[in-house]
Amino acid sequence: MDFNIPIACLLCLSSLASSVITLGTTPGIQNIFIGRCLAYQELLKPYPQTEVDCNLLWVKFVSSFAGKEPCELKSEDYSGFIEMSLSSIPEDKAMFWSGTYRVAHDYAESGNRFITLEDTLLGYIMNGLTWCGQTAPPGVNYRNCPSYNDCPETASTAFWGTASSQFASQAKGTVTILLDGSNPARPAYSRDSYFAKFELPSLSPDEVKMMNIYVVHAINQPYRETCENGTLPALQQAVKDHGLSYSCRDNPQ
Amino acid sequence: MDFNIPIACLLCLSSLASSVITLGTTPGIQNIFIGRCLAYQELLKPYPQTEVDCNLLWVKFVSSFAGKEPCELKSEDYSGFIEMSLSSIPEDKAMFWSGTYRVAHDYAESGNRFITLEDTLLGYIMNGLTWCGQTAPPGVNYRNCPSYNDCPETASTAFWGTASSQFASQAKGTVTILLDGSNPARPAYSRDSYFAKFELPSLSPDEVKMMNIYVVHAINQPYRETCENGTLPALQQAVKDHGLSYSCRDNPQ
Repeated sequence: MDFNIPIACLLCLSSLASSVITLGTTPGIQNIFIGRCLAYQELLKPYPQTEVDCNLLWVKFVSSFAGKEPCELKSEDYSGFIEMSLSSIPEDKAMFWSGTYRVAHDYAESGNRFITLEDTLLGYIMNGLTWCGQTAPPGVNYRNCPSYNDCPETASTAFWGTASSQFASQAKGTVTILLDGSNPARPAYSRDSYFAKFELPSLSPDEVKMMNIYVVHAINQPYRETCENGTLPALQQAVKDHGLSYSCRDNPQ
Repeated sequence: MDFNIPIACLLCLSSLASSVITLGTTPGIQNIFIGRCLAYQELLKPYPQTEVDCNLLWVKFVSSFAGKEPCELKSEDYSGFIEMSLSSIPEDKAMFWSGTYRVAHDYAESGNRFITLEDTLLGYIMNGLTWCGQTAPPGVNYRNCPSYNDCPETASTAFWGTASSQFASQAKGTVTILLDGSNPARPAYSRDSYFAKFELPSLSPDEVKMMNIYVVHAINQPYRETCENGTLPALQQAVKDHGLSYSCRDNPQ
């Protein structure tokens, strides 16, 4: 289930079917949550945003899942929490990635050019946390949370799927997506990826003028996929079908 | 004064004479401190370490400076706090850097090869925070802290100088230092750097077998300094005078 995605999995959102270690809710989650929320707003704030009350945000988060059966959660359970954390993303800044976490974040950070979900308040707070509720007191389960594959799909993606959709729905102007064209274990573009399932469908064809697709290849690795072959033509078709203009480049910069 | 180093300055420790914006103690510092401490131990813990009680560590930190005149602090005021946060560093893992924060941390993280001060519990918690005390209640000054240059040198470096020394004193086996050989504004090695003032003198010639010096050059920038010229010969002499063996390479990997 999605609230059980450890860092490693958030970092490789290309497939929703990864297997994960089962853990309980992260010990000290309240302190970590509020501390990150304050640090983000007091120290980092990478772009202009509306101020959020970190204690209220925590209450909103806990009430999304505490006291509930973890596998019965729906997107709506998180929508109040996610909406409270949202700020608009500056035009031309939204960046998506799939299978290229490190490259994407280095690229995004160089000169603060782009903003990924992990650069938003919500993504920054939640990255790597594990949590789940239980109907018995105290309402939060610190012993073990259902694994990512133990719940129906709606519950698995209730949080990160909704967060990804909301992030994409804020994008305006030109958007950028970075894909990994060198990974033998994973296609550059997959219909099971968060990008395909939540982000692309949430991009507004009225607000988004253009999508720049960048296919990144690791140094000393074969070019398994490029703009012209592999899964890239299917992505370009999907983008066109959604009503967006696009460009595709291999190995930008 | 050192407790007033914002992120930008911690990231460029090459000179102790940088000027900084004057701010008060970071709002929400207690939550940020404890949240980072928990996140480090519950989520990150990059190498095996002794568990630390985050609430006790906070109390130890606050009692180092609260209620005191900020410009009268000495290294000893922080020593209890710094010692409580210390864990030994695995052999051959300690890395120092000067003027190359981003490169150093990318390098350190690739395959978890190296550990910098910022990868320790102490460095992770304190990075970017501002704090200072006052004799009047409540003992912590949230309005403004003396700037980095307003205090005598002992107070300026009481915290980060001591932390750097303690980190270096834990190093065993081979140590690595990354220097920037391309920066026109700053020599690769400076006698005013934290490395020269606190780290090199704290390395134990009995425990440290070897120092690998790496001079990094930015892509498309002139090689202003290399192992053979500029300030590098002075560094190599200082390392030799301290009783350590060394090697020097331009642009490793």
